[in-house]
Amino acid sequence: MSPTGEPLTGERILEATEEVLRRHGPAKATVVDVARALGVSHGSVYRHFRTKAALREAVTKRWLDRTAEALAEIAAGDRDPEARLRAWLRGLFDAKRRKAGDDPELFATYTVLTGESGEAVAAHIAELTAQLARIVREGVAAGVFAATDPETAARAVFHATGRFHDPCHAPEWARPEAAADFAAVVELVVRGLRA
Amino acid sequence: MSPTGEPLTGERILEATEEVLRRHGPAKATVVDVARALGVSHGSVYRHFRTKAALREAVTKRWLDRTAEALAEIAAGDRDPEARLRAWLRGLFDAKRRKAGDDPELFATYTVLTGESGEAVAAHIAELTAQLARIVREGVAAGVFAATDPETAARAVFHATGRFHDPCHAPEWARPEAAADFAAVVELVVRGLRA
Repeated sequence: MSPTGEPLTGERILEATEEVLRRHGPAKATVVDVARALGVSHGSVYRHFRTKAALREAVTKRWLDRTAEALAEIAAGDRDPEARLRAWLRGLFDAKRRKAGDDPELFATYTVLTGESGEAVAAHIAELTAQLARIVREGVAAGVFAATDPETAARAVFHATGRFHDPCHAPEWARPEAAADFAAVVELVVRGLRA
Repeated sequence: MSPTGEPLTGERILEATEEVLRRHGPAKATVVDVARALGVSHGSVYRHFRTKAALREAVTKRWLDRTAEALAEIAAGDRDPEARLRAWLRGLFDAKRRKAGDDPELFATYTVLTGESGEAVAAHIAELTAQLARIVREGVAAGVFAATDPETAARAVFHATGRFHDPCHAPEWARPEAAADFAAVVELVVRGLRA
């Protein structure tokens, strides 16, 4: 139990970690800062996350999962596959743009963390391309898309739209031409998938 | 005239500047270093390039132009438009990958310089998309591509293939899956343009 009487869960530790990262930045944030913010000993934090690296990886995963969960709902929807693909790509661009624009410091922090967390990022990209592959596969089944290998096509769609979700392109997302550029790439990609 | 007896041309200054940048890195390279490498006074350098920023912009432009010139030949070729588009995209990826792989320090230096030279980069991208637009336009005229606006389509092709030419993706170019990823995106893009 922490001094507030609430049980110390992994989720509470991750919330506090995000807040500490926001305040101190990724270079200075320590496990002791997290424990202090929660009013517990750093030993209590280590019982949930065995190393500082594990804690950083877990908070990065949580941040990435928030986007993936919202997109999973779109991918599993029952709209026709082309509309679903367009909504999914728009949802991904909007989520990333919002994260970068609403809280640039936290976004910069997570850009550093994702650079460290190769595994969390690889799992995130695998999850997103699996969602895309589901849409492509259902489009092929419905006869609206053509793709000999939906997994390869999904990966190609993910890469072809990278300008609108890869954090290295974040400085370009606020430019006035970004909306038209996004629309033109989505158009090209959708045409490229059509049967 | 410099001590070697050769006239001091802008081109010789730019060659020396690239060498100085390679040796000292973008943060430390000075106009005095360039003058010393050429055995001339810094005043002689300033007669060709009025400021250090102008010299840095010119050397960046020269570096970008080398790629654009090689691609211009492909764009102006007489192969059928689809083969020309494929060769052009391959040429761009190969040129960037070679620059990044053969001399990583110089590539990192130019990545810093292009970050400073907004105008040189904008002109380079305008030149490359104009080459692409030419191929798309000729494809439309030949009835093999469909595009209501070849300029917009060219820009979309450029952005959709950004993973294989934008310097922020350089760390990914040496990965074993890069060749297959590139092939899949080119396939998607070509299909997206076809009439």
